[in-house]
Amino acid sequence: MGGYPFVKGHGTENDFVLLPDPDGSVHGALDADRVRALCDRRAGIGGDGVIRVIRTAALREYDAAAAEVDAEWFMDYRNSDGSISEMCGNGVRVIARYLLDHEGLTGPLAIGTRDGVKTVTVDGDRLTVDLGRPKALGETKVAVGDRSWPALHVDMGNPHAVAFVDSLDDAGNLYDEPAYDPGVFPHGVNVEFVVRRGPEHVAMRVHERGSGETRSCGTGACAVMVASALADGKGAGETYRVDVPGGELAVTWTFDNRVLLTGPAVLVASGVTLL
Amino acid sequence: MGGYPFVKGHGTENDFVLLPDPDGSVHGALDADRVRALCDRRAGIGGDGVIRVIRTAALREYDAAAAEVDAEWFMDYRNSDGSISEMCGNGVRVIARYLLDHEGLTGPLAIGTRDGVKTVTVDGDRLTVDLGRPKALGETKVAVGDRSWPALHVDMGNPHAVAFVDSLDDAGNLYDEPAYDPGVFPHGVNVEFVVRRGPEHVAMRVHERGSGETRSCGTGACAVMVASALADGKGAGETYRVDVPGGELAVTWTFDNRVLLTGPAVLVASGVTLL
Repeated sequence: MGGYPFVKGHGTENDFVLLPDPDGSVHGALDADRVRALCDRRAGIGGDGVIRVIRTAALREYDAAAAEVDAEWFMDYRNSDGSISEMCGNGVRVIARYLLDHEGLTGPLAIGTRDGVKTVTVDGDRLTVDLGRPKALGETKVAVGDRSWPALHVDMGNPHAVAFVDSLDDAGNLYDEPAYDPGVFPHGVNVEFVVRRGPEHVAMRVHERGSGETRSCGTGACAVMVASALADGKGAGETYRVDVPGGELAVTWTFDNRVLLTGPAVLVASGVTLL
Repeated sequence: MGGYPFVKGHGTENDFVLLPDPDGSVHGALDADRVRALCDRRAGIGGDGVIRVIRTAALREYDAAAAEVDAEWFMDYRNSDGSISEMCGNGVRVIARYLLDHEGLTGPLAIGTRDGVKTVTVDGDRLTVDLGRPKALGETKVAVGDRSWPALHVDMGNPHAVAFVDSLDDAGNLYDEPAYDPGVFPHGVNVEFVVRRGPEHVAMRVHERGSGETRSCGTGACAVMVASALADGKGAGETYRVDVPGGELAVTWTFDNRVLLTGPAVLVASGVTLL
């Protein structure tokens, strides 16, 4: 890895290795091997992904996606397997926290991503990001072992199947991917299991495609809110509390049909790599 | 956590948060909550345990065990659940690497532990620690699901049951603790599954009591070597290569009936906590 600065942070326990690299000179094109080594939880620093903190102008040399974006800073997000990801609802709050604490920025922040510019507003410890327009695409079905449930197909830029269950334990250990209809989800799906906790208050577990069960999924919380509001006969203008294993999120469905994700973002440690 | 320096390191992917605290003034008695927070792999830095690097003289204020030890430096080892542990065969190599690289010491090193003074010798990247006298205590049995195997009970200061299997896959996913005889192991047992790879060369998986399957277990590798040598009609004076999921170890059974564990120790990152 070799003497690079890093910061470790998380949003509701979805955790990231941040790589400060304002002008792109530290990591260049940022190769997949380095990302995998950094994310390794035992031989590396450990994280669900890497977020390079880079000026959009500097990233343009390496990534055409940055050319489309009008924002000073860019979230160059990579999954722990080294692949590129467009967006991460928890990650964008964590990079916002970094820009606030370490680059002296003040909110609201406009942050470039491969899914366009995201605006983050700040209210003390809690940060809110606009995750765009949800699409409810009809009923499907998911299964774990010999149990199956009806589920709502919700698209938040990525695909979700939201199933209401009697108990979060019903989904079992979630070591394996739940079964789903590959005709509906040819590229896989994130599966959320939801229980009601009270009025406008639900709790969820999630199996993320490619990652297994995680402590939190930002777009998953949004999909769960949309499915819950529709099931409650509600819609735009509502805010739900969504408990995830790693903490508590709030999701607002606005009157102009956008979904806002609110939650904490924490920076845990900073340092330099030694390898 | 609050602005403490740390180093992250690992030995064959058994990983630790090291806390440099030479005079004990940073962490005092080092409470269990702090250890758990540091070891949390998503909300903290992440590790199988914490190793405070402290002068033995300074630790005496907090721990009577240090009074018994004649060594300048002490490995104050804690498990990730906050409990105290006597020794860790991979951890002692990692603290040795730290003392070599950051405190300017040269080998051989005498390192105090709650299991007495351990001597670490240095040969480039590879460090060797003397883990003491093995005891082969007779045959027992372990089981995973509906499969069971005979196993050798080996005591390395902690209890092990070593089972030879046809394939390391036979042990399944090891999410759950293998079944064992509670009459033989009233305080639980570390269970190793072993296959032969060649002359004096074996490979293993391990389920550590209280931790689940891990990438490496130093005393487990020693127990496996002893069981393998005995099964081969050999004994003292032999060296075996023991492959673990996280890398490669060498174990020597000396003519004076001691077991030496040799392997790498790597420091991955250093920094300060921000919480």
